[in-house]
Amino acid sequence: MAMMNPCTVYLFHGQGGVCFNMTQMDQISELNTEDFTVAVEPGVTRKTLNNFLRGSGLWFPVDPGADASLCGMAATAASGTNAVRYGTMRQNVLNLRVVLPDGKVLHTAGQNRRPRKSAAGYHLTGLFVGSEGTLGIITQATLRLHGIPEATVAAVCAFSTVKAAVDTVSLFSFSIPEFLDDVMMGACNRYSGLNYPELPTLFLEFHGSEHSVGEQVQATGEIVKSNGGSDFAWAREQEARNQLWTARHNAWEERNPTTDTRQRVAMCASLSPRKLHPTFLLQGYSTDVCVPISRLPEILLETKKDMLESKLTGPIVGHVGDGNFHCLLIHNPADEGGRVAEFAKRLGRRALAMDGTCTGEHGVGLGKRQLLREEVGEVALSTMRQIKAALDPKNLMNPGKVL
Amino acid sequence: MAMMNPCTVYLFHGQGGVCFNMTQMDQISELNTEDFTVAVEPGVTRKTLNNFLRGSGLWFPVDPGADASLCGMAATAASGTNAVRYGTMRQNVLNLRVVLPDGKVLHTAGQNRRPRKSAAGYHLTGLFVGSEGTLGIITQATLRLHGIPEATVAAVCAFSTVKAAVDTVSLFSFSIPEFLDDVMMGACNRYSGLNYPELPTLFLEFHGSEHSVGEQVQATGEIVKSNGGSDFAWAREQEARNQLWTARHNAWEERNPTTDTRQRVAMCASLSPRKLHPTFLLQGYSTDVCVPISRLPEILLETKKDMLESKLTGPIVGHVGDGNFHCLLIHNPADEGGRVAEFAKRLGRRALAMDGTCTGEHGVGLGKRQLLREEVGEVALSTMRQIKAALDPKNLMNPGKVL
Repeated sequence: MAMMNPCTVYLFHGQGGVCFNMTQMDQISELNTEDFTVAVEPGVTRKTLNNFLRGSGLWFPVDPGADASLCGMAATAASGTNAVRYGTMRQNVLNLRVVLPDGKVLHTAGQNRRPRKSAAGYHLTGLFVGSEGTLGIITQATLRLHGIPEATVAAVCAFSTVKAAVDTVSLFSFSIPEFLDDVMMGACNRYSGLNYPELPTLFLEFHGSEHSVGEQVQATGEIVKSNGGSDFAWAREQEARNQLWTARHNAWEERNPTTDTRQRVAMCASLSPRKLHPTFLLQGYSTDVCVPISRLPEILLETKKDMLESKLTGPIVGHVGDGNFHCLLIHNPADEGGRVAEFAKRLGRRALAMDGTCTGEHGVGLGKRQLLREEVGEVALSTMRQIKAALDPKNLMNPGKVL
Repeated sequence: MAMMNPCTVYLFHGQGGVCFNMTQMDQISELNTEDFTVAVEPGVTRKTLNNFLRGSGLWFPVDPGADASLCGMAATAASGTNAVRYGTMRQNVLNLRVVLPDGKVLHTAGQNRRPRKSAAGYHLTGLFVGSEGTLGIITQATLRLHGIPEATVAAVCAFSTVKAAVDTVSLFSFSIPEFLDDVMMGACNRYSGLNYPELPTLFLEFHGSEHSVGEQVQATGEIVKSNGGSDFAWAREQEARNQLWTARHNAWEERNPTTDTRQRVAMCASLSPRKLHPTFLLQGYSTDVCVPISRLPEILLETKKDMLESKLTGPIVGHVGDGNFHCLLIHNPADEGGRVAEFAKRLGRRALAMDGTCTGEHGVGLGKRQLLREEVGEVALSTMRQIKAALDPKNLMNPGKVL
């Protein structure tokens, strides 16, 4: 296996496991600015790549919030705020170099291949994207880059109800809409010293040419108005945009490396009406369902009701253009962990009952194996298991996960 | 298995094969105009679906030319002219109902599921799209629909060289560009009584809002001009667009059901400098390579040179925004078949040498198995075979194809 940098191997004697630290495999190679392609090793994060691309006019837009490893993002089919416009990792990985369980090196689309489309045999790239390390170890990803838009405009508007906010989103065809509920807006106000109305709020971003962005902003403003939204605060320059989006950034660590999980928990906890626990005992648990967009208002309302009845605290943030949202449940695992787990399971089943998925972008891991079975059914699960058994007959790769 | 309509089974005693005629499974169901989703059975073609959608404001844009079965298009990972803007079948299939070799019915994303994105387990939908019937029989596809653009504008412009035309394409970020070479333009002129310059020509289509389309046309016109292109003929109304695109439509049967293969062959044959064969003996053979866009001018020039040296006649049409092009080789199989096959193999290898694929959208079938091996390598081929063996251990499904 050709490796540019070593990876460190850790042995877990207790459970018989082995863990690979690949942060030092950090080569960025094969940048082609004409074809909008680049190859990255597992140690390369999305911010590192975008810094590397500075000045080229290109960027990699998939943004799951954290400054994650791009190969890890491929392994988990990550997406985030920009997916509604640029696609998830599924649409932005052209090729993967994978070490298979038998030690052979697989290039999912063939070595060095990077055409924008192909119909050559089974779509192995698509199979390995989202396989969560259970089929092999990704040691390089060839990615599709995008042109940095000529103009970007950010906008914020509040609504009196969740339904009004979310119904509005389905009328947009171009913006990148993010939803923050009243609870999250309250948390952001207290944590960041802001003064937003504590109402269901849409944060929007528009990308395009100068003209088309202006047109998008105008059309969206009209839709917002006719759906009872507040006046439309908008910003064009990077700094003003950052200021406007401060709440959204802080809400989910996005683009703000200083807001670590502990701080986010503290931020969300700051609004808890139940000051039962010292902050240091609290943890955050994020849900991740995704439903067809028409079902979003219904599931958001039912979920907020359930949260209230379950006596849980959890602001809601959503990539609502894709029908995907997260509740960040702030809880003390010692005495609320059980209730959180039950709530999350009910939420997963609620999404399944609405033709949705229990995981839009976080993956299955250990926690959602039962929900996966309910979501895809026995035949699909058994098909996945046949593939796993065929490619990893000794069950060496991330055993026990997903299936 | 729940079937709304019967499918007819044919037995091929000679080769021990069975063939399913599924044209009568023609239900369109579960149209959801809010979520832009619909489910179709194998008997539903793309034109039937788009007629069904008339008045809904929605359409299904993937357009491989022929009025193909949508489930068949899923099975072969079809794409075509609009893929550069709307994606191929890979990006537009949300779920598949598949009868597996053991008779079980698989829903690749789980029954009735249609979220816009998901990270729930292995991406079986992506695996079955493009599997060419070798893993199971697709009996329903859930598709993603798109809003019909507010405005559509078509444009045509000619260039003095292939390189100038194709280099221009890489500067466009928004249009749907199709390339016809000088030979194809000559054929179109003679067949349809048109009067286009017999030069490398780009046919462009712009989709968007009224304003943005106007802006796109203007920006593109400037790029075309600065790259030495001819004046920009453009049309806005449906009829004018159809007239402008007549050549492109006739070129490849697209949107023109009356131009069948025989007629296309006749059209292309009409320009043959070598009137050696009566038209009825001629056949068309279409190549299908796809390369990174930066390599397009080079491969087009080399291919035209090879065609000349090989004494073959073949106009070239390309979905050049994706780096994909086809030579339609007009030949008499009796005495030119061997030369055509050798030419096609050389072209496939030329694409592989340029980091491309031997098939952008037609698939592997029987003819490209050797090229597939060269393209993806032994490890990928063996991984594909392991998957095939796991899911179809008795090799019942389209045996001998692809792998």
